[in-house]
Amino acid sequence: MANSYTTDRSDDEIRSNTDAPEVVVHRLPLYVRVLAQLDVTGAEMVSSEQLGTQLQMTPAQIRKDLSYFGRFGKQGRGYNVKRLSQELRSILGLNRQWNAGLVGVGRLGRAIIAYPGFRPEGFHMVAAFDEDPSVVGSSVGGIDVRPIAQIKETVAELGIHIGIVAVPAPNAQSVCDALVESGIKAILNYAPVAPQVPLEVKVRGVDPVLALQSMTYFLKS
Amino acid sequence: MANSYTTDRSDDEIRSNTDAPEVVVHRLPLYVRVLAQLDVTGAEMVSSEQLGTQLQMTPAQIRKDLSYFGRFGKQGRGYNVKRLSQELRSILGLNRQWNAGLVGVGRLGRAIIAYPGFRPEGFHMVAAFDEDPSVVGSSVGGIDVRPIAQIKETVAELGIHIGIVAVPAPNAQSVCDALVESGIKAILNYAPVAPQVPLEVKVRGVDPVLALQSMTYFLKS
Repeated sequence: MANSYTTDRSDDEIRSNTDAPEVVVHRLPLYVRVLAQLDVTGAEMVSSEQLGTQLQMTPAQIRKDLSYFGRFGKQGRGYNVKRLSQELRSILGLNRQWNAGLVGVGRLGRAIIAYPGFRPEGFHMVAAFDEDPSVVGSSVGGIDVRPIAQIKETVAELGIHIGIVAVPAPNAQSVCDALVESGIKAILNYAPVAPQVPLEVKVRGVDPVLALQSMTYFLKS
Repeated sequence: MANSYTTDRSDDEIRSNTDAPEVVVHRLPLYVRVLAQLDVTGAEMVSSEQLGTQLQMTPAQIRKDLSYFGRFGKQGRGYNVKRLSQELRSILGLNRQWNAGLVGVGRLGRAIIAYPGFRPEGFHMVAAFDEDPSVVGSSVGGIDVRPIAQIKETVAELGIHIGIVAVPAPNAQSVCDALVESGIKAILNYAPVAPQVPLEVKVRGVDPVLALQSMTYFLKS
């Protein structure tokens, strides 16, 4: 099996590739997750047909998605589960720690701090911010809550890469502005609004209502 | 302004259109949300450039997305905010009530029941299910918790369209199987796994880790 994986690009070329459509990049974590599940079951190889079944995509889509990042797998033999998983994790930058700062320590913010899924994946919540004086200075889930005015200095001090926004909708834009001004390039947005940010800043929304609203299209048909 | 909106398709044709790529359908709720925000500010018209700025897309992408569903707006005049919003809501099936049933009444499930964002958008949580005998029979947020074995009869009884899965990862597949068997065609999945379902069943995941993992790709560059 050692030779069943090939690539025609150097590691550096893979890493610097930014030509993949954003929607393809958004799917890569799903590939990583499915591959991890396959690895647990002991599977060594997986075909694009099998991946397609798991991901509700056609085998051709799977092959096209992966082709943006290199040549994985051999014709007729499929992909080596462990190797493809490791490569995709490397491409996504998942082999390191990323520090996150949370803005908004209300009910939702507290649930986010308590969420056990971040740390095992390398996402460390290292700071929290709120504007409520009765919350600032307290400790929530082991994290000291600082005033929103201290976002910029804290981002620099603690090496924060990712801002997590859990404030009410009317406050979301100004909080995103403050995060952008402090140099943050990635925002996970729980507020039910689409904030405006510069093109080089990525925003992903966590919003169950948006997810429901795109499924009703298909229910209705 | 009355004539600034045109379409070359009958309402029925719009409604039955299923040729739009799924990724475009997934973006439509974002359009609806941005249009609602514009409407609140009193804006009557909006250009594809303005929509593009708000949605971090090019004006050409905006025009292409909308072209799948009809001809909205006039060359050089942009889109009528209220009308485009109403049409997109109709296309997405948002002008009616959808009943949802939650499976898994742990900490996450309770937060979902308490989430105030569903009902104003027409999503009504009408049933909850759990396998834990100490929870079954109790009432959580005004909803009686039933045993998982009663999913099928409850879906029929209460006209449930959407299943919401908030069980631990190892239980997610069997719960999705039960939902599919009961006729559910749309599943909102909070479990950190990609369940396998028939092609005609839509699954959308609510997963902050997946969102973070696709942003690190861009942070890394």
